[in-house]
Amino acid sequence: MAAKLLSGKEVSESMLAEVLKDANELKEKGIQVKMAIMRVGEDPGSISYEKSIITRMGKSNIEVESVQFPIDVTEADFIAKLQAINEDKNIHSVLIFQPLPDQIDAEKIKYLLSPEKDPDALNPTNLGKLMIADERGFFPCTAEGVMEMFKFYNIDVKGKDVVVINNSNVLGKPLTIMLTNEFATVTMCHVHTKSTASFTKTADIVVTACGIYGLVRADMLSEDCILIDVAMSQMKDENKEFVLNEEGKKIRAGDAHVDCLDKVAMITSATPGCGGGTGPITTALLAKHVIKACKMQSGLL
Amino acid sequence: MAAKLLSGKEVSESMLAEVLKDANELKEKGIQVKMAIMRVGEDPGSISYEKSIITRMGKSNIEVESVQFPIDVTEADFIAKLQAINEDKNIHSVLIFQPLPDQIDAEKIKYLLSPEKDPDALNPTNLGKLMIADERGFFPCTAEGVMEMFKFYNIDVKGKDVVVINNSNVLGKPLTIMLTNEFATVTMCHVHTKSTASFTKTADIVVTACGIYGLVRADMLSEDCILIDVAMSQMKDENKEFVLNEEGKKIRAGDAHVDCLDKVAMITSATPGCGGGTGPITTALLAKHVIKACKMQSGLL
Repeated sequence: MAAKLLSGKEVSESMLAEVLKDANELKEKGIQVKMAIMRVGEDPGSISYEKSIITRMGKSNIEVESVQFPIDVTEADFIAKLQAINEDKNIHSVLIFQPLPDQIDAEKIKYLLSPEKDPDALNPTNLGKLMIADERGFFPCTAEGVMEMFKFYNIDVKGKDVVVINNSNVLGKPLTIMLTNEFATVTMCHVHTKSTASFTKTADIVVTACGIYGLVRADMLSEDCILIDVAMSQMKDENKEFVLNEEGKKIRAGDAHVDCLDKVAMITSATPGCGGGTGPITTALLAKHVIKACKMQSGLL
Repeated sequence: MAAKLLSGKEVSESMLAEVLKDANELKEKGIQVKMAIMRVGEDPGSISYEKSIITRMGKSNIEVESVQFPIDVTEADFIAKLQAINEDKNIHSVLIFQPLPDQIDAEKIKYLLSPEKDPDALNPTNLGKLMIADERGFFPCTAEGVMEMFKFYNIDVKGKDVVVINNSNVLGKPLTIMLTNEFATVTMCHVHTKSTASFTKTADIVVTACGIYGLVRADMLSEDCILIDVAMSQMKDENKEFVLNEEGKKIRAGDAHVDCLDKVAMITSATPGCGGGTGPITTALLAKHVIKACKMQSGLL
């Protein structure tokens, strides 16, 4: 029997309706929600991401100020602008695009961004707030997106055995803490794990985010498993060659092999037919965090 | 065959020799290492802990300024003193004793303590630094004590399956992140875990810190297991009655049942005959962190 499909799009639409309502209510109070994007250089991927954020925020009545720097901007100029934004009462959040060029010390910048205007937890202070479950913190959007998925579909993680296949600062580590704060029993797996399958086989929930199509297969999972696949990758065959569609194009996929669909209880993945994955939730959460920052800075939270 | 005993005392003595050497070298450079303790009220446990810290630091040539407040001190007065210490160039660290009385907002105080003078990671910014493995951060002493144990006995955690039975902000969560940063595969168990034994049975390393004698028993562990028992408790029998020694006194113990000693490969625990546990390392680490804070504030690190 095919798994129940969980749709990140459905989750994000529900969240964005709430965001729009909040932004409009703030506007009625005379507050225009606004975020800034700081981008150095002309990387096409970054420009495209920036455009999608501007469009998305526009639909949510959130204004975006795009601050662009030449690739050879000095660290001092970059910091001066960041501090001006930190102090600007009309800007509630700022997203600093990564990577920064070598002349700018990215580690230093993290700490200079005001934690109150930091919607994606670049400043480690927000990760520390996560560790102590301080709800006034901002947590990494991709990780929190997985928690939003559970919330939307009424999946109670308390007491569940959860495997997170990822150990990054933006996903595996914060998600492990979020799940533990909700009393799940979490095992974090990664490239040095002896046997990921030995954990996933008995897990109630598996979250994966590796970018390797087929990393998670049906024989690694139980029939009761809920599989949340955060990865964005392309489908490859058993010889590690790209699989092409009828138009000769690569096929978007997650970590989940297509055979997972007929095995597990619930699934979301970018792998075709598997619900689409959590991607759309990330931008919705960014918007939600900008609203939260605005409310906090306006004394409404 | 009895397990190899790991001795927290041995680890701490090695660390304290290093601390004393550092403190003396700093003195030769004209720098007296100094920490402050802030204590509100006259709780006997706190007074006794304070005395032990003063004695310990004295042996390490670290000066301690003990700041005592009446139990009805106002929040404003407490904060004023904390800020004076934050700004005092001759004080390199400050330990704020918990719990604080109700009129002082402990959550607010956490963030007011300078992260640079915070040797036991009270300020969440230091927990955030741990999440991104920023070595200039200060991490909770009890959790880091377990890592010092591994280091001293050349136990490589990379790729090992580790179970941490504790989910607190000062032990389970930070230790899970520390171990993950060293590429162990960690499962964090707690009171809502369905079956802790199902994880411990195949684990290479088990760290426990629950304060319940007998929580960890031989039949939950493999013969190759390394058991690190951080707990401080008293021995009870199968009817949950205290076990008394020949003098009629309660017997200090950890979580590990005495039967673990003859099962596992290596052990440390406060349970009699099991190596003594990690306790002594915690104060040694506190001293080490005060030295590190002094060096950083003096531009030597």
